[in-house]
Amino acid sequence: MTSTPAPPYLAVIFTNRRAGWGESDVDAAYGAAAQRMEELARTIPGYLGIESARSDDGVGITVSYWETEDAIAEWRGHPEHLDVQASGRADWYEWCELRVAPVERAASFP
Amino acid sequence: MTSTPAPPYLAVIFTNRRAGWGESDVDAAYGAAAQRMEELARTIPGYLGIESARSDDGVGITVSYWETEDAIAEWRGHPEHLDVQASGRADWYEWCELRVAPVERAASFP
Repeated sequence: MTSTPAPPYLAVIFTNRRAGWGESDVDAAYGAAAQRMEELARTIPGYLGIESARSDDGVGITVSYWETEDAIAEWRGHPEHLDVQASGRADWYEWCELRVAPVERAASFP
Repeated sequence: MTSTPAPPYLAVIFTNRRAGWGESDVDAAYGAAAQRMEELARTIPGYLGIESARSDDGVGITVSYWETEDAIAEWRGHPEHLDVQASGRADWYEWCELRVAPVERAASFP
């Protein structure tokens, strides 16, 4: 569970299906890049947290949370992230979709 | 991939970790309820689509998309859904969090 502050803040919803899913070398390269990107995101001022899940069929959802649009822009434009975005489009995703949405309200349990 | 119209529309981001994860009877009951809820959601006017993923560790993310706040309110208050929400709080989730966020922009690939 990712602890986020009271709204408003921004969510970046990234849904995708992996290409080469289940191929051990592709999965290993992807996993290493994903872990590195999470480490990198944490260094961006305004980063609030990330949640991620991927099903056995290769469909994944990652939601990252940010204080401001400027923080998202810095993350989107980070040189190392730009390289990984290019790899994603070329090799790692059958399809992907990115949505940016300001969180207006939130509730958690318990 | 869920085809949604051009923004604006609303996203409901539901993140959770299953309780009783890997217990076959609990998983079966949960799976049946989840499938039924997806069928039910499709009947609500203003429903646009749903995306869902769950990892091996039981962490799941479901994002549903809606035209209006009224549509979300109808979905949230549907009697059959209220029953399942109660089961979720009592039996099915170690933790869960719900966020409502209007999607401002979206991009997909390819």
